[in-house]
Amino acid sequence: MVIFMRIGVDIGGMTAKIGLVEEESYRIIDKKVIPTDGENQNAEILIGKIAAAIQAILRGNGIPLNDCKAVGIACPGTVDSRQGIVLYSNNLKWEDIALADILGQEIHLPMAVANDADAAALGEAICGAAKDKNNAVLLTLGTGVGGGVIIDKKIFNGYLRGGCELGHMVIERRGRLCTCGRRGCLEMYASATALMEQAAIAAQADKASVLNALCGYDYKALNGRMVFDAQKQGDKAAMQVVDEYEENLSIGIANLINIFRPEVVILGGGVSAQKEYLTDELQRRVSTVCFGREHGEIPPIVTSALGNDAGIIGAAYLI
Amino acid sequence: MVIFMRIGVDIGGMTAKIGLVEEESYRIIDKKVIPTDGENQNAEILIGKIAAAIQAILRGNGIPLNDCKAVGIACPGTVDSRQGIVLYSNNLKWEDIALADILGQEIHLPMAVANDADAAALGEAICGAAKDKNNAVLLTLGTGVGGGVIIDKKIFNGYLRGGCELGHMVIERRGRLCTCGRRGCLEMYASATALMEQAAIAAQADKASVLNALCGYDYKALNGRMVFDAQKQGDKAAMQVVDEYEENLSIGIANLINIFRPEVVILGGGVSAQKEYLTDELQRRVSTVCFGREHGEIPPIVTSALGNDAGIIGAAYLI
Repeated sequence: MVIFMRIGVDIGGMTAKIGLVEEESYRIIDKKVIPTDGENQNAEILIGKIAAAIQAILRGNGIPLNDCKAVGIACPGTVDSRQGIVLYSNNLKWEDIALADILGQEIHLPMAVANDADAAALGEAICGAAKDKNNAVLLTLGTGVGGGVIIDKKIFNGYLRGGCELGHMVIERRGRLCTCGRRGCLEMYASATALMEQAAIAAQADKASVLNALCGYDYKALNGRMVFDAQKQGDKAAMQVVDEYEENLSIGIANLINIFRPEVVILGGGVSAQKEYLTDELQRRVSTVCFGREHGEIPPIVTSALGNDAGIIGAAYLI
Repeated sequence: MVIFMRIGVDIGGMTAKIGLVEEESYRIIDKKVIPTDGENQNAEILIGKIAAAIQAILRGNGIPLNDCKAVGIACPGTVDSRQGIVLYSNNLKWEDIALADILGQEIHLPMAVANDADAAALGEAICGAAKDKNNAVLLTLGTGVGGGVIIDKKIFNGYLRGGCELGHMVIERRGRLCTCGRRGCLEMYASATALMEQAAIAAQADKASVLNALCGYDYKALNGRMVFDAQKQGDKAAMQVVDEYEENLSIGIANLINIFRPEVVILGGGVSAQKEYLTDELQRRVSTVCFGREHGEIPPIVTSALGNDAGIIGAAYLI
């Protein structure tokens, strides 16, 4: 009996990960990682290396091309998934890259492209935190805030190009200036970057805060874990920063529940490492503000089950 | 040849409208209106009168029951459309009313219930402003801000109960207190009520404003049209109020475009009487703030084509 395989590629700001996924079990059998800095910032060069890595993975695992069903690629930014084109990626500095076409010249397999958060949401829906659900909303809390929506077990990303940018929902008109050019986007209040920026400001303003010692007064070295560690120790500055972060994130989540009423809300990205410590508090806050309260239904908020592999696995099953 | 009919009922805070709709042409052939105040505030009494009106309309137009395909009811508030139950309607002061069951005891026809903005969106999608489109977002700008979303020509209202409450998306954290209990909901910034409240505040603060004369110093008599009329005359207070109103509404619309990327955004309710005067300005504002700008696609913003009939027509085609 042939064991069919799929290839999932997850291109990020730091690395491109190429995974060989077993069709039936959803298991990643083999994985290669390519840095996306230096000469690899050039799209053609990176795509050439991804093609070579796919060929090496298939060869190394003795998989004939016919036994591999598809290649899917997850990519940050605005994607035309029907055409397989990356329209614009701020992270990769790509514009109008015909990703599926270029890769397809080297690898003769069915090919599809999706936004990375969309792919991660699909991965969670197939075999992760939403595997028993048909409708889910995923937020990735990392450098920015990515969004993926699953309706009836399929990726929903709107009809016209550039939909499901859940991080670019304004929660404070005239608020903080976002990289997208608008003011007050959720991304500026709920990303890991926002958490660390606010912590750096709070630490500098409160010399007694343990945040200063934790980062060795190097505020660029602050990370999300340090902020939560300090908060758990009862550090006043960190407590305020985490309290405001949780308030902001819960505003965004409640907005999305009022719109999508999914069966589950999934959090991914760096901040989701806090697991129930974060989600219990968000659940409490969200339950008091969703429209209709007891007349509406409030889904559970959980953290990603697949973690960093969600994008690879979701990408592998795009077609 | 039999000409099939449908019945659409649109229950609002002031009146319940019952329409006889011609299946093929979508035309409203006959209509009855019942006030929803006084003893009609009682759900059982009102539903009884709606049943009598449906029977009278069918009889009066010589339509045998068999030639009427369905009855659909549009209703403000949170609706369980699968079960035909109104879970909670703030406007009607209804809680857990088994609308389809109660009406079904009198009228033996297939029956369905939907939120009123959802039904209006469906009406526009069938034969109104989105008749050539499959994906649309509708906002009704009236007492509150209602929301309806059409995906693939069908009403989308989330999986769990209480979805698509687009007016209860916070656009200003810690902002104005909403009737839903949250702070900063779009409804508090973009409803007709919000426009009139801000105009009343501005008129009282600026005795030179023509708004004072227009309403005869009776600020409760102010309406949306007066505010726009004063703005068109160059009245400073009104210009500021309209400018801020348009800013707030465009923030909400841009949020929804970033999420749904529909083919068209439709505005209904009282404020939409301003037609292109309003939508041209909103289009200009929204085009500068949607994610991806020229890399995304920005749908046209238009006003309702069916006006106050959208709910009746949409309701008639719920099943």
